[in-house]
Amino acid sequence: MPRDASNPLLLTPGPVSISLSTKMVMLKDRASGGVEFQADLKFARDYMVGLVGGQGAYTAIPLPGSATYANEAVIAALVPPGGKLLIHTNGVYGDRLIEMCAHTGKAYTALRTPPFTPATTVQFETAIRADPALTHVMVVHCETSTGVLNPLEALADICRRYSKGLLIDAVASFGAIDIDAKRLGFQAVTVSSNKCMQAAPGIGWSVVQKTALENAKGNCPTLVLDLWDQNQHMDRTGAFRFTPPTQVLAAFAQACREHQAEGGTAARLARYRRNWRRLVDGMRQMGFSTVVPDEFASPIVATFHNPDHPAFSFQKLFEGMQRRGFIIFPGRLALADTFRIGCMGEVTEADMAEAMTAVAETMAEMGVTGLGRTDLAAAD
Amino acid sequence: MPRDASNPLLLTPGPVSISLSTKMVMLKDRASGGVEFQADLKFARDYMVGLVGGQGAYTAIPLPGSATYANEAVIAALVPPGGKLLIHTNGVYGDRLIEMCAHTGKAYTALRTPPFTPATTVQFETAIRADPALTHVMVVHCETSTGVLNPLEALADICRRYSKGLLIDAVASFGAIDIDAKRLGFQAVTVSSNKCMQAAPGIGWSVVQKTALENAKGNCPTLVLDLWDQNQHMDRTGAFRFTPPTQVLAAFAQACREHQAEGGTAARLARYRRNWRRLVDGMRQMGFSTVVPDEFASPIVATFHNPDHPAFSFQKLFEGMQRRGFIIFPGRLALADTFRIGCMGEVTEADMAEAMTAVAETMAEMGVTGLGRTDLAAAD
Repeated sequence: MPRDASNPLLLTPGPVSISLSTKMVMLKDRASGGVEFQADLKFARDYMVGLVGGQGAYTAIPLPGSATYANEAVIAALVPPGGKLLIHTNGVYGDRLIEMCAHTGKAYTALRTPPFTPATTVQFETAIRADPALTHVMVVHCETSTGVLNPLEALADICRRYSKGLLIDAVASFGAIDIDAKRLGFQAVTVSSNKCMQAAPGIGWSVVQKTALENAKGNCPTLVLDLWDQNQHMDRTGAFRFTPPTQVLAAFAQACREHQAEGGTAARLARYRRNWRRLVDGMRQMGFSTVVPDEFASPIVATFHNPDHPAFSFQKLFEGMQRRGFIIFPGRLALADTFRIGCMGEVTEADMAEAMTAVAETMAEMGVTGLGRTDLAAAD
Repeated sequence: MPRDASNPLLLTPGPVSISLSTKMVMLKDRASGGVEFQADLKFARDYMVGLVGGQGAYTAIPLPGSATYANEAVIAALVPPGGKLLIHTNGVYGDRLIEMCAHTGKAYTALRTPPFTPATTVQFETAIRADPALTHVMVVHCETSTGVLNPLEALADICRRYSKGLLIDAVASFGAIDIDAKRLGFQAVTVSSNKCMQAAPGIGWSVVQKTALENAKGNCPTLVLDLWDQNQHMDRTGAFRFTPPTQVLAAFAQACREHQAEGGTAARLARYRRNWRRLVDGMRQMGFSTVVPDEFASPIVATFHNPDHPAFSFQKLFEGMQRRGFIIFPGRLALADTFRIGCMGEVTEADMAEAMTAVAETMAEMGVTGLGRTDLAAAD
């Protein structure tokens, strides 16, 4: 049965497609002070702390907005006046953290490494040793602009040895890739309500070490982004400080239940891996090649080179896919000759197989034939 | 037919009940870069500018979060370093603006007037003359904590005469009470996506004078709340800077279509007035009295005294109403012996009549009988 092109499956870096049962929760109006809403809030907060194994030592704080709000709030709260942040970047989302600090006047140093490979232990350690003023290090776990996965465990070891606070942007990995508080000892991890948690976008979550947050009172230059204040109010009253996005929060609690029912982070990762495998194998069979070497790629999103064929146009591929009920995504500006296909969200291997058929049909329509198989050969 | 107590009608100061057709829009996943989503964004922005008659001179900027975010963003953008804000307060939401400025270190003076009447022209003018350092004045149009409506036209005249920038928190009035840019000449008005606009909570809107915003570059101490930056990016690209709450924005566009279909602001006001009339008449017939004199009350929410009867308990009234499918709201801390019933949202006079029956039944259940009719008499 052909897909409904007016309600396509999103194969993008986000917003991603989420389950109908999660969206159905939004058909109800809820009082933000109601028992049911506050139970959802408590369940979601506890679930998020549980996902990092942080019971007792960590607190989960939802901030209406997006994950970018959570990143800005975490930096404002945890890097104190007089503190200094090392920001690693190998992509668009690392660059955004830098933009944030440049905008707000937060002291920082940028560690810029090449885009298609993770940073190395040596690069992190060299940067940390070079600047004794550094108090914190922030890294993007999964760079959504490429799919590259940066090494958390190695960085956490270094932060422990040099006594630096570790802040993790896990916006595109949390929920599908395990992030363990005891092993990593991070001060904060930030999360999108959408992406691998598969709820509606509209809330940025932070899971923060309580001892780190205790010292954060008064650090935030705004009221609405003040994580310390949001957390104390929520702990004390069980409610948000300001009118919350009730539908989005209720959907998030439902998404947590579905995450749990699927089998948690490990099961979600296994599904995304199957999606990614089916995607990358299928695209390679058609002659596409991936930008990121397989050993550095996450099963979140894959980046492909535009094939070097006179009849190929990304715009035509996009439109052909859209007509067949799938949304794919262009590359980012700096990677203009690439495009991306996401593996996150309410997407199965069977969906991905259908998407591969749609790519093949669209390529035939375009008249792109006989693409080289160099990437496939190289991967053998 | 009895109402569904598990899906009650919200008669609260917000979040309010919204139409099923607005919520149904959230059953679809949308790419934030998609043609349909960007058309919804453009339509909603244009519609908001149109509601104040500000075509050409004003821009409408959605900021994911809540209306409190919009208030903080407007103050940060438009009251420049070296500027000073006069904040009028006669309730909880005026107090929140003060808390915001105290928190962020923005220079301000508070003009505090009694809670159950509007501020007067003399009070505004005296405060403005007393402090020549003032550059801006901010007022809460409808104080949701009481329902008191503050006088915009008189204040706008004074601001014009003394050359002060006028900022209006119209969070609980916009969409139901006319706010005219040409008559008022305000620099900014802030709006909730919920309340009288009847969409899902999750976006704070600002409608801002373009000439005022031009000077706002670099004023905001955060990246995510930077209205200047949000506006220029949106004007340039037709898209949000950061992942938007796609469901909430799409629902907002639908809510604008339904606002238009209802007959715009005037028709919505007429419906809320009928709701308010039915509510206040019904409650008075049962012996309740209102806190705010009718001539100062808005048809947004009504505040009632807890009756002085030994068998009355607000908690029991709340629970009895909830069992019958209606959610009402306690008073705010400073007004602990009051409660509130809202008239906003997808609520009709027939709903309100049913709610009055539910109040009568609950009062009988409690054994509260023979309440005095002093308030009814006084209103004659």
